[in-house]
Amino acid sequence: MDVLGVLNLGEIAQYFSKMAMFPVFDVAYYIVSILYLKYEPGSVEVSRRSPVASWLCAMLYCFGSYILADVMLGASPIDYFHNNSHVLLATAVWYLVFYCPLNLFYKCVAFMPVKLVLVALKEVVRTRKIAAGVHHAHHAYHHGWFIMVITGYVKGSGVALISNFEQLLRGVWKPDSNEILNMSFPTKASLYGAILFTLQETHWLPISKSLLICLFTLFMVTSKVFMTARHSHGSPFALVESWVCHLLFHSPLGCDDSHDHHHHPAAAAPAASPAKTKEELNEGTRKRKSKKAE
Amino acid sequence: MDVLGVLNLGEIAQYFSKMAMFPVFDVAYYIVSILYLKYEPGSVEVSRRSPVASWLCAMLYCFGSYILADVMLGASPIDYFHNNSHVLLATAVWYLVFYCPLNLFYKCVAFMPVKLVLVALKEVVRTRKIAAGVHHAHHAYHHGWFIMVITGYVKGSGVALISNFEQLLRGVWKPDSNEILNMSFPTKASLYGAILFTLQETHWLPISKSLLICLFTLFMVTSKVFMTARHSHGSPFALVESWVCHLLFHSPLGCDDSHDHHHHPAAAAPAASPAKTKEELNEGTRKRKSKKAE
Amino acid sequence: MDVLGVLNLGEIAQYFSKMAMFPVFDVAYYIVSILYLKYEPGSVEVSRRSPVASWLCAMLYCFGSYILADVMLGASPIDYFHNNSHVLLATAVWYLVFYCPLNLFYKCVAFMPVKLVLVALKEVVRTRKIAAGVHHAHHAYHHGWFIMVITGYVKGSGVALISNFEQLLRGVWKPDSNEILNMSFPTKASLYGAILFTLQETHWLPISKSLLICLFTLFMVTSKVFMTARHSHGSPFALVESWVCHLLFHSPLGCDDSHDHHHHPAAAAPAASPAKTKEELNEGTRKRKSKKAE
Repeated sequence: MDVLGVLNLGEIAQYFSKMAMFPVFDVAYYIVSILYLKYEPGSVEVSRRSPVASWLCAMLYCFGSYILADVMLGASPIDYFHNNSHVLLATAVWYLVFYCPLNLFYKCVAFMPVKLVLVALKEVVRTRKIAAGVHHAHHAYHHGWFIMVITGYVKGSGVALISNFEQLLRGVWKPDSNEILNMSFPTKASLYGAILFTLQETHWLPISKSLLICLFTLFMVTSKVFMTARHSHGSPFALVESWVCHLLFHSPLGCDDSHDHHHHPAAAAPAASPAKTKEELNEGTRKRKSKKAE
Repeated sequence: MDVLGVLNLGEIAQYFSKMAMFPVFDVAYYIVSILYLKYEPGSVEVSRRSPVASWLCAMLYCFGSYILADVMLGASPIDYFHNNSHVLLATAVWYLVFYCPLNLFYKCVAFMPVKLVLVALKEVVRTRKIAAGVHHAHHAYHHGWFIMVITGYVKGSGVALISNFEQLLRGVWKPDSNEILNMSFPTKASLYGAILFTLQETHWLPISKSLLICLFTLFMVTSKVFMTARHSHGSPFALVESWVCHLLFHSPLGCDDSHDHHHHPAAAAPAASPAKTKEELNEGTRKRKSKKAE
Repeated sequence: MDVLGVLNLGEIAQYFSKMAMFPVFDVAYYIVSILYLKYEPGSVEVSRRSPVASWLCAMLYCFGSYILADVMLGASPIDYFHNNSHVLLATAVWYLVFYCPLNLFYKCVAFMPVKLVLVALKEVVRTRKIAAGVHHAHHAYHHGWFIMVITGYVKGSGVALISNFEQLLRGVWKPDSNEILNMSFPTKASLYGAILFTLQETHWLPISKSLLICLFTLFMVTSKVFMTARHSHGSPFALVESWVCHLLFHSPLGCDDSHDHHHHPAAAAPAASPAKTKEELNEGTRKRKSKKAE
């Protein structure tokens, strides 16, 4: 009976890891990605003033991982755009999210239970992308471990890694921070996932790829759904990371950026200070103006 | 007689679309492009302080479209630089425009009637580039409509699309705006041209390519010469675009950026406000200083 | 006897130009490069807060020249990372420089006599890289002189050419300047070296490549060791360059940026002025604050 159970699990994993992502999962990916774009301050104004810029940003959100992976492997960055149906689908989603009458589509997909389902589906796609990226890089560079990790990483993180330039397209420039300096949970998880899949691909991890896909998907879906439901930005890695970083890299304990930076403003990097000074100045100007108005 | 007329028109179009661009038309393209570079504030100082940076900017102005198209199709970005004669010619034009004794060359080519002829020749090259870009992309991706449009677009727009980074080379950084957020007429026309040529290439537009080249060249030359002569930045598309954008993308009517932004400062995007605040501050400082001087 | 002397010199040059760079010379290159990274203000904080960003910067410092050359020739930018041993070695050096207990490793390699030896070894690698870059480009583009010069140039200059983006990774943004606008000595020497090696490769310079490598290495080692020992940023080209630039490009005499900008602050480019204004403002604010504190 036990053998049968294992066999079944293997078969389920096999089936799951071969399941087609297009169109259901991909649409969920596009919806959640463009939803996050709409959350960005100023993105709605951009969609009114310059639909082309807004469309380009939406495409970066949807296909950023393919663009980056293609760049990393020396292919054409817009290679993925020959999948007309995918691009048309993403364009339709973009149009519905930004321009649907009465904002109906946005309200539907941003409704929490719906959003949780979509987020779960998105994480399924993300895991698949990481695995595909590592596999693709392994095909091109048989012993290039670093290349495999990097390709899997950019495949999982997508637009987040080039958020500075995506913002620039919308006329926003925030050089003080970037996704690598302050990694969010999905970016970190993509890095760890890319390392795991690389270990699997080079046979250091004695586990079948389909099972690893299954397990990692399970972890990602659970974490991300839980975090979305609780509006949390904390990371399940925080405690372990904090100790490992303290031991290996002398990082101050309890100064995990994605978690605690509201509590320890004094620990902020000096790099951020000029921006703060500017903000303070503006703050001051605003206060003076409002006083005059009174 | 009518058939003969059509035959002749087709023959003329055929002849026109096969005409060699090198060297006359290309030189005109280089001259007008580098003239626009010299108009940029600070570019003359850069040419004195750092000739290498100035030369690089000039090359970006002259060959930006080739560089971008090569990047988009995954080729070497400096592939076009193996045409030594083209690069040497562009270098000679750059030298004459920036360093000619008594500024003689600049004065000649900036003289309005001469400039109008050069601008007309430049638009001939632009149209050819768009057509070549679409054709090239069609060769690489037979059904990649989006790739064709994007390649034709970057081929027509050239350095304008990377103006932020070209400015950065000269030590100037204006993140508040970019060519995609505020499209100028040539960029818009390149986009529409790329769409037309893509439709032609995929046989959705029942018209011969040579005729389309002819007609689009005629449109571009007329518009651009007219606009240059009148120092206008308005666009012949403004009215249609304004209505289409209003209907499709809920853009506020009459808020076409390239046309009316002098009249409606209140409609400016919030993204531009920090820069304005800074400018106002500087303005204030300057006023105070000039008062003291008095 | 004289013939024998020449023969011997040729043989020595031949032997020297075939000498393996890995691992001794490469390690020296990594150490000096990462040392310069540690000198950058804020880089130690980044290494504490975000080891991934710090590691990426270190890799850019060590392999920036390969990355840039691969990009220029249209290959995968991370192609060089399939050399696992090189990357692991650079990673080890990075770890030792930034996280070694008691800062022991840093103190050792920053100790002047040791540093001078390492700097000398680094310049040997640089010259080899320029020669290899030109050769590689010559292989791909037989008559592409400009491509050869550009490839050799980026191979010699490495991360310096993309320092703006390397800084951005660490949350620092200084658009007012860049390596092309204000060339440092190694960047300039790389440019001249790339031109010399291109002339040699295209048989305009009647000299064997091994001899040119020898002579250029000698020049680079001498200059760089001398400059490091004297903490000087002046360039041996300054006088000649100043006159040539004055004659060819109307540059003001004696305004060589890398040499004299401390003595002639009035000659600073207008591009730098907004930043200065901001700094002055901050300065003012700080003064007022400190007054209040008193």
